[in-house]
Amino acid sequence: METIENNYKERDYEVHIRFPEFTCLCPKTGQPDFAEITIRYTPDARLVELKSLKMYLNAYRNEGIFHEEAVNRILEDFVAAVTPKQVEITGTFNVRGGIYTTVTASYPP
Amino acid sequence: METIENNYKERDYEVHIRFPEFTCLCPKTGQPDFAEITIRYTPDARLVELKSLKMYLNAYRNEGIFHEEAVNRILEDFVAAVTPKQVEITGTFNVRGGIYTTVTASYPP
Amino acid sequence: METIENNYKERDYEVHIRFPEFTCLCPKTGQPDFAEITIRYTPDARLVELKSLKMYLNAYRNEGIFHEEAVNRILEDFVAAVTPKQVEITGTFNVRGGIYTTVTASYPP
Amino acid sequence: METIENNYKERDYEVHIRFPEFTCLCPKTGQPDFAEITIRYTPDARLVELKSLKMYLNAYRNEGIFHEEAVNRILEDFVAAVTPKQVEITGTFNVRGGIYTTVTASYPP
Amino acid sequence: METIENNYKERDYEVHIRFPEFTCLCPKTGQPDFAEITIRYTPDARLVELKSLKMYLNAYRNEGIFHEEAVNRILEDFVAAVTPKQVEITGTFNVRGGIYTTVTASYPP
Amino acid sequence: METIENNYKERDYEVHIRFPEFTCLCPKTGQPDFAEITIRYTPDARLVELKSLKMYLNAYRNEGIFHEEAVNRILEDFVAAVTPKQVEITGTFNVRGGIYTTVTASYPP
Amino acid sequence: METIENNYKERDYEVHIRFPEFTCLCPKTGQPDFAEITIRYTPDARLVELKSLKMYLNAYRNEGIFHEEAVNRILEDFVAAVTPKQVEITGTFNVRGGIYTTVTASYPP
Amino acid sequence: METIENNYKERDYEVHIRFPEFTCLCPKTGQPDFAEITIRYTPDARLVELKSLKMYLNAYRNEGIFHEEAVNRILEDFVAAVTPKQVEITGTFNVRGGIYTTVTASYPP
Amino acid sequence: METIENNYKERDYEVHIRFPEFTCLCPKTGQPDFAEITIRYTPDARLVELKSLKMYLNAYRNEGIFHEEAVNRILEDFVAAVTPKQVEITGTFNVRGGIYTTVTASYPP
Amino acid sequence: METIENNYKERDYEVHIRFPEFTCLCPKTGQPDFAEITIRYTPDARLVELKSLKMYLNAYRNEGIFHEEAVNRILEDFVAAVTPKQVEITGTFNVRGGIYTTVTASYPP
Repeated sequence: METIENNYKERDYEVHIRFPEFTCLCPKTGQPDFAEITIRYTPDARLVELKSLKMYLNAYRNEGIFHEEAVNRILEDFVAAVTPKQVEITGTFNVRGGIYTTVTASYPP
Repeated sequence: METIENNYKERDYEVHIRFPEFTCLCPKTGQPDFAEITIRYTPDARLVELKSLKMYLNAYRNEGIFHEEAVNRILEDFVAAVTPKQVEITGTFNVRGGIYTTVTASYPP
Repeated sequence: METIENNYKERDYEVHIRFPEFTCLCPKTGQPDFAEITIRYTPDARLVELKSLKMYLNAYRNEGIFHEEAVNRILEDFVAAVTPKQVEITGTFNVRGGIYTTVTASYPP
Repeated sequence: METIENNYKERDYEVHIRFPEFTCLCPKTGQPDFAEITIRYTPDARLVELKSLKMYLNAYRNEGIFHEEAVNRILEDFVAAVTPKQVEITGTFNVRGGIYTTVTASYPP
Repeated sequence: METIENNYKERDYEVHIRFPEFTCLCPKTGQPDFAEITIRYTPDARLVELKSLKMYLNAYRNEGIFHEEAVNRILEDFVAAVTPKQVEITGTFNVRGGIYTTVTASYPP
Repeated sequence: METIENNYKERDYEVHIRFPEFTCLCPKTGQPDFAEITIRYTPDARLVELKSLKMYLNAYRNEGIFHEEAVNRILEDFVAAVTPKQVEITGTFNVRGGIYTTVTASYPP
Repeated sequence: METIENNYKERDYEVHIRFPEFTCLCPKTGQPDFAEITIRYTPDARLVELKSLKMYLNAYRNEGIFHEEAVNRILEDFVAAVTPKQVEITGTFNVRGGIYTTVTASYPP
Repeated sequence: METIENNYKERDYEVHIRFPEFTCLCPKTGQPDFAEITIRYTPDARLVELKSLKMYLNAYRNEGIFHEEAVNRILEDFVAAVTPKQVEITGTFNVRGGIYTTVTASYPP
Repeated sequence: METIENNYKERDYEVHIRFPEFTCLCPKTGQPDFAEITIRYTPDARLVELKSLKMYLNAYRNEGIFHEEAVNRILEDFVAAVTPKQVEITGTFNVRGGIYTTVTASYPP
Repeated sequence: METIENNYKERDYEVHIRFPEFTCLCPKTGQPDFAEITIRYTPDARLVELKSLKMYLNAYRNEGIFHEEAVNRILEDFVAAVTPKQVEITGTFNVRGGIYTTVTASYPP
């Protein structure tokens, strides 16, 4: 994830990003999982660069990872790269076994 | 209901589960009832394992139980098995006699 | 309106009832009025029995009553019969003369 | 049902009427039934007068009648009163016992 | 209604116009009526000029006219002014007395 | 605007009125404007009589008035006629020049 | 499935029945399957009695059966019991393994 | 507009393209117009290359052109470049002066 | 793709399959593409086995292929494996460069 | 951006403006970007004049500017021209590279 300068860092404003094309693998079965990832953050000195964010999210494509793990790891990587004033990440996963799961984590606690 | 370890228990995050395929029997008439069950919880040390949750909910299939009773019993079983920081359970039942009923219970009070 | 015992009265939980088939008469013209009645309540010792609730609401069918009057009277009858911890009643009436009216009343004040 | 003159009877055009407030009684249980009635017709010499149509449909309010019977009887009364070039009547009834029923009949055969 | 030249009259193509802001008066009560007018036509040598069409439709604002009459008269005026290869006019009127009415007429028969 | 007695004035309840058929004229161009007016109020001793409210709103039909002016004037007239405990008026105007405008004003400040 | 007399058998009209609460078991895994069954038929001498139809469909609740098998068997049983002029049965099954399946069969061929 | 080879030209199949970001200028006022362009075609020996199609459509951005003209010109350019077996082009334009316009043209006639 | 026996092959009925989780790679950029694949077929002697169909579609995950190519190849593989009486395949692809593409092919021609 | 007098400045009321036709250029690629801009403000002594607002927003048409930059600059220009009591500006941008971005900024901080 790369960043670009935020020219309005003295103002608290919100950027909301929606990425409906997240896919990874189920670590148990190896079968594909699909989710929409949303990122809502208040930038500090840096903005996330959108193309690098897309590349970062696409890198999960062939990785086995649980739903809760994926959302928490994206949160930690985003905080490390962008150091926002605050951020909330949500993963809305496609139905599996009749169950729809959504995971939401935020920073700071 | 089985559980798996929560690797991010120091962080308060939310898991939202939606199960549209809940069915039980009306204790008066023996006829089928249908509902969508949603579970929204903040995990502590354990996460609910989704396949075992599905099995648990499917076990109501041939049991006679009232709407209010079903939601409260699922809440108590979930708290006993997963010991979340907090949890809210909702049952949205199909129309019966022209009436739509939704029951919502949460823990801690 | 009859009631049944609430086995979970020590817990504050919510029951939401939606009845789209309410009809009464306009006291001025005698013409039919139609509404959806919703009841959202936190039960105390008693739950409303759904079939008797339906019978109670159907009894307005041939009665002339204004919108505001209907919702307030249902509220008073519900409180008298069920003595909930709290309750909110809404009547969403069909369009008349190009105007859509919704009335909402709750207890305790 | 009363009628008014159709000033454009030499032209085949269509009038579509939707009445979402039809209610009658179930002939078995005496409980209320609800439906949306739609009438799509090509007028000949006469148009149906809308207020008298509403009065006609409201007259079913306290009458016990089956779904299929209601739609066919409305069709026959409409044909007798308006003598349209053609007409199709549909009744879309509210759910009863988990079943939604729609009945459609038309004239001429 | 004014017209402009159709540069593609040798090709049969379709223009669909939707005007949700039609209003006139009920000839019985003097109260306002509202409708969405749609015009679907295949132009011949001329296209309708849109601003003049709007002016034409706005001219009904304080005129008393029945639903069926309005749609048929718009059809006749449109055919006289634009002489299309074919045209269909629909008026979808707002609910009055619980009844929704739509009228559709077309040319040539 | 006329009023009728509120039989439940000791209880704070809400009446929500929606009127999708508001029309006036643009004071600059004389062209028609259209809006949906909503009124949400908590009655004190009086309720607004719905037919007179409709007549009041219809009286704007041929009057030139700006969007912000219309909503504020309706608010002042409503407060003067009904003296509610509180009221909020919203006008949602149709698109003009690619811009959709909504104005919301309330009493007491 | 029981039937009642069709008083309008000389007229070809259509009855459309929708039953969103069909459930059976997967013959491979024993896990529950869910579907919405729709039946669209033109009655001959007999109409299906709705309560008995519901009982018939509920009888699949604990039976293992494939999607294609279920729809074809319901079709054959319906034809045998009701002998309609024509009938079309559709089963719209809930997602399994990321796949949504709908099966439609009709009589006569 | 560039093209690429169609490897399945012996089979009649359909490609449907939707481009919601078309914009041009009104030739009268110079103000921007907006539309969604859809292209539905059966390819012969060539397929349209999507990036060049986008460039072609973007080239209208600062050009003054009427609605009917734009759709017919896109049709002619598409036929010239791609020589499809058949093609239908639709332009759904944003509201102007309260009027929504859609133009549809196809080839061969 | 494996198949199972069709017990009702003498009857022409339709099976409609929807798979919203198709993903492949763009052969130019290597970036992921996403689509919903639908298959509508009339079975002859064999039905497609759903789990093997899912495995077949998932095998495109890391393969570079154009939209038109993907749909035509799935059609050919389906016909070879299932030999249906008829089949239609549609791929509805996610937006790329502001353009939404849908491809539909069927057999027999 | 021009302004007109606010006749009700002593009252805190809200004006909500929605402009779905904002377009600018990507400063990296020169390709068009599209967004819906919403402005929600509480006027002080002045109201924004809508036609001049439209002209102001249309002036971005051929300017290269990033999403975050555009929303913040519109905010600053609006505050400078209208000096509202408060204002919130949102830009909802069309998908680019599979990512949907929304930016929201407000004044005072």
